[in-house]
Amino acid sequence: MSYPQTREEAGNAPTVGVFDSGFGGLTVLRALVARMPWARFAFLGDTARLPYGSKSRRTIARYAAESAQFLVNEQGAQSLVIACNTASALALDAIQDAVPVPVLGVIEPGAAAARAASATGDVLVIATDATVHSHAYAAACGGKGLRALEKACPLLVPLVEEGWTDHPVTAEVIRIYLDELRSDAARQGMNPDALVLGCTHYPLLRPLIEQAIGGGTQPAIRVIDSAESTAEAALREFEGCVPAITDLPGPSAHESQQTEIRCFATDSVEKFERLGSRFLGRPVGDVGLVDLGG
Amino acid sequence: MSYPQTREEAGNAPTVGVFDSGFGGLTVLRALVARMPWARFAFLGDTARLPYGSKSRRTIARYAAESAQFLVNEQGAQSLVIACNTASALALDAIQDAVPVPVLGVIEPGAAAARAASATGDVLVIATDATVHSHAYAAACGGKGLRALEKACPLLVPLVEEGWTDHPVTAEVIRIYLDELRSDAARQGMNPDALVLGCTHYPLLRPLIEQAIGGGTQPAIRVIDSAESTAEAALREFEGCVPAITDLPGPSAHESQQTEIRCFATDSVEKFERLGSRFLGRPVGDVGLVDLGG
Repeated sequence: MSYPQTREEAGNAPTVGVFDSGFGGLTVLRALVARMPWARFAFLGDTARLPYGSKSRRTIARYAAESAQFLVNEQGAQSLVIACNTASALALDAIQDAVPVPVLGVIEPGAAAARAASATGDVLVIATDATVHSHAYAAACGGKGLRALEKACPLLVPLVEEGWTDHPVTAEVIRIYLDELRSDAARQGMNPDALVLGCTHYPLLRPLIEQAIGGGTQPAIRVIDSAESTAEAALREFEGCVPAITDLPGPSAHESQQTEIRCFATDSVEKFERLGSRFLGRPVGDVGLVDLGG
Repeated sequence: MSYPQTREEAGNAPTVGVFDSGFGGLTVLRALVARMPWARFAFLGDTARLPYGSKSRRTIARYAAESAQFLVNEQGAQSLVIACNTASALALDAIQDAVPVPVLGVIEPGAAAARAASATGDVLVIATDATVHSHAYAAACGGKGLRALEKACPLLVPLVEEGWTDHPVTAEVIRIYLDELRSDAARQGMNPDALVLGCTHYPLLRPLIEQAIGGGTQPAIRVIDSAESTAEAALREFEGCVPAITDLPGPSAHESQQTEIRCFATDSVEKFERLGSRFLGRPVGDVGLVDLGG
């Protein structure tokens, strides 16, 4: 059986819009493509205006709403995944108000996966400074009866962007961060059995993180990749808007290399094209430059 | 003898404006205060709109000109130091056009100090990605008959901001970067004897950098701190606008703790206040929030 190869052939194949302030969200797109290879995808990185983390909630809401409108109005997205922790934490409502399609963020699926994975009810979360300051994961986990301890790991994004995803320095930095986090948890009498990767860059560090968290005599901690959790949630939640995976031919992982993906950025197309393929697991192709204004 | 303690007492003491896109430029301010403790200083970090490095030249020029106008028109600066490599590289002309006071960037003084320090005529430059991509140091050094080899060291700013300025991980990262740089230089037949710190964060890493560059059997390489070079150049160039250091009572290094410094930021005052003192070498005090528009 064949599946759509081009936009014309795709006909009614649904378009899923994926939005991030940068290009880290390409890890979420990668997870989405693996689960919905028959869909079409439009990805927008608002690279001209990053980092969102240092901006006010109102500014972030305006930027995210403009980006969402581009994906829906210009790219025909019938559903949206907000593959950005900051925007998911601070602007999900504003985005939902701005566009008439279902919108899914990364935080709720990550917390739900932690709930499903944890027997003790205690979970750890690592993320950027901005995400930790928002306490969005702690709130989402708390809403599900979990106790969450969050830790900012500001060196991990630069290490990934330097390409040191399998480097002794990165392994050492991860070991230091996770040792500090486990010590803090022990001091608070917590007994964590799950670790949420609360940043879209971190899936590239998963092997090193699993090595660090599984080592020694400490009890095992399960790693929750919120990119994977979000893709699974998208598959369930968008059922009304996109055909269920069983209704359409399911190409193999190899064939999903041919899924249609259009990438856009608001600036820094060069860096996006250079680094993006590592996040997406395949070439990002030409990245379109979009002007959303100041 | 006494020197001005307050703005009122200071009377005619000159105000030097210092501008950066973030707060790294506080290392330049620190060097300026050490040389002109009798002056008053107004520092602006355009933190809401950083990083400048990923933006277009036109946008950077507009941001930098607005920031310079704030320092001159609102804070009464009679001279300006652009303590930001990106703005110095891409917007010095635009700033000079925007304000009627002398303006000094960080790149020219760094290159001049390298020229004075180098016997071989070959120099190394480490800086951020954006500064290296601008090749501003290579051009400034080339104009003085030097051959410069530049290397981007994107992990160093995050390591400084994490507070790991005396950490084994940072020492290892510096060793890796400098080994790569020296190997590249050797491959190109260069014989460098000076290393320019082309980023305002790097003075905090000077001890580790000197350790790494001085080690082993390789010939000695002199470290040029462009913050120090810029402060020395400011003292010379602003002679007409500010009294020469010999004309005014010179307080000791201890007394320079009392030099009047007013700090402003366009966002993220919390991070500025938390991290700034490490860069400035004394508390930054209350940081005023300034709105320069989008």
